[in-house]
Amino acid sequence: MNSTLEKPYAVGIDIGGTNTVIGIVDTRGNIVAVDAIKTGAYQAVEAYAQAVCEHLSALVASHGGKEKIKGIGIGAPNGNYYTGTIEFAPNLPWKGVIPLAGMFEERLGIPTALTNDANAAAVGEMTYGAARGMKDFIMITLGTGVGSGIVVNGQVVYGHDGFAGELGHVIIRREHGRVCGCGRHGCLETYCSATGVARTAREMLTAGTQPSLLRNIPAEEITSKDVFEAATKGDAIAREIFTFTGTVLGEALADAIAFSSPEAIVLFGGLAKAGDFLFQPVQRAIDENVLSIYRGKTKLLLSELKDSDVAVLGASALGWELKG
Amino acid sequence: MNSTLEKPYAVGIDIGGTNTVIGIVDTRGNIVAVDAIKTGAYQAVEAYAQAVCEHLSALVASHGGKEKIKGIGIGAPNGNYYTGTIEFAPNLPWKGVIPLAGMFEERLGIPTALTNDANAAAVGEMTYGAARGMKDFIMITLGTGVGSGIVVNGQVVYGHDGFAGELGHVIIRREHGRVCGCGRHGCLETYCSATGVARTAREMLTAGTQPSLLRNIPAEEITSKDVFEAATKGDAIAREIFTFTGTVLGEALADAIAFSSPEAIVLFGGLAKAGDFLFQPVQRAIDENVLSIYRGKTKLLLSELKDSDVAVLGASALGWELKG
Repeated sequence: MNSTLEKPYAVGIDIGGTNTVIGIVDTRGNIVAVDAIKTGAYQAVEAYAQAVCEHLSALVASHGGKEKIKGIGIGAPNGNYYTGTIEFAPNLPWKGVIPLAGMFEERLGIPTALTNDANAAAVGEMTYGAARGMKDFIMITLGTGVGSGIVVNGQVVYGHDGFAGELGHVIIRREHGRVCGCGRHGCLETYCSATGVARTAREMLTAGTQPSLLRNIPAEEITSKDVFEAATKGDAIAREIFTFTGTVLGEALADAIAFSSPEAIVLFGGLAKAGDFLFQPVQRAIDENVLSIYRGKTKLLLSELKDSDVAVLGASALGWELKG
Repeated sequence: MNSTLEKPYAVGIDIGGTNTVIGIVDTRGNIVAVDAIKTGAYQAVEAYAQAVCEHLSALVASHGGKEKIKGIGIGAPNGNYYTGTIEFAPNLPWKGVIPLAGMFEERLGIPTALTNDANAAAVGEMTYGAARGMKDFIMITLGTGVGSGIVVNGQVVYGHDGFAGELGHVIIRREHGRVCGCGRHGCLETYCSATGVARTAREMLTAGTQPSLLRNIPAEEITSKDVFEAATKGDAIAREIFTFTGTVLGEALADAIAFSSPEAIVLFGGLAKAGDFLFQPVQRAIDENVLSIYRGKTKLLLSELKDSDVAVLGASALGWELKG
């Protein structure tokens, strides 16, 4: 705790396909300063790293200088914790293997760790959120895709290569499964992401003629938010869409429980805010599909972190773990 | 290492539904003495514990006394590492929660740890076998059922309740899945255990009229060993049975890789000895079903421990970890 007292801040950097958000975070999980740049504006990663470091240096200078910073944590798609590299990330402008943590350390002289966004979210939840004090839990991020961060014995599961924990890509439908962006069929993500929900909506609307508020929206424009709003207005098809989504997710989680028997599964992301529309069928499907020795033991929790904060908080939580 | 030098032996006890095998093991993994009793002969667990301890005391006395024993490890169905209890094991005579590790410690004054048989096998493989030096691997035991021991960061994954790692009960067929002994449908174990192989044989023989050596055996008596022997003689149906079995197993392992990205998956048990008949379709199904970032990274290995030894060795490896 001494070094924490000496160094009151950690930096969290969330690298998304659109924006990169940079935050300075205190020991209680308050984001005390934040800045952002457009990720896509930098075709060369050197220019990008330079821009992030300049923005970050300004923030750091206004908070007492780099002596106050314990470490920098970065959450990025396809981030490899072991090597500090981003590897073949399809949604980022830079191809191949990018040694980003090293580039930051070199420019700033501050220890830097990097992992994928869902792992960062799990560390954030364990440090500041719903999983405080837990040693075994699984974080599921329900966004454009489905991500996961798995914690066992208080440590994120990185696997032998740094890429463990891709529960969005377990095969949940082996026959006639939906095509996934990864090139395979039937991945969990094709059903339980925001885009999966929109896809289910189009399928269900096409399959029948039952009236629905969703028929007022051009099929290709329906979003998971539209489905949620229709559900809150009592729309039967919209509720059925969430029931289906939650059932598929619960089936996958029942298998995940057989793997690591977590104390809790924490759901995070836009879809998780659908509340009981989603949570009830998820819980029911877990109860119906889980092996009896696990039944009723694993809590299903909503993330306690704000959507807008979790990526930066999670990344910053990595920063605390560094020897600054 | 000092304490290991002072105490040259660990005890491994393998509790099966039929036999209980007791072994004294040296630091190199040699079983230097072994004894066995009939598990089913003791309806009262107290009488059972007494009998095991008497047999063990005799072995220990002939090897320098209990001062030479670092610890006792027990592998048992439904064994809970955290509590040292066996909980509701369907194939053992004693019902409910049995505090067996405590009963042994009390009688013998030697520290005792207990876990399920597949976890014990994983520790054995890590200590003496194919997974030496690995920090992330998955052990799959292919016996009457399918068990698993998952190692992450060099530690067995026990989960929050001590029961993690039941990959034999992930659902691999959600539609028209086979009925499992656990009461659910489509569990991996119903396809990839020795009994699953026999079941597949009966299904395939019934489904067609193709000649097969297996038709010389009454359908209900076919065993996985018969299928293996027919396969070695070039029998087409027998080979197809292994191809199907391996494919289903590979599909499940591809999902397991997405979970913990292990350096290796170690197959153990009677079925694993089918060699290429099984390993080739397993490897092919992993390659075809795994997410591209994992492709070609996880080794598929055969256990390096003898079937007759693994349970005792694995249990004894738990004993080394104790503070004796």
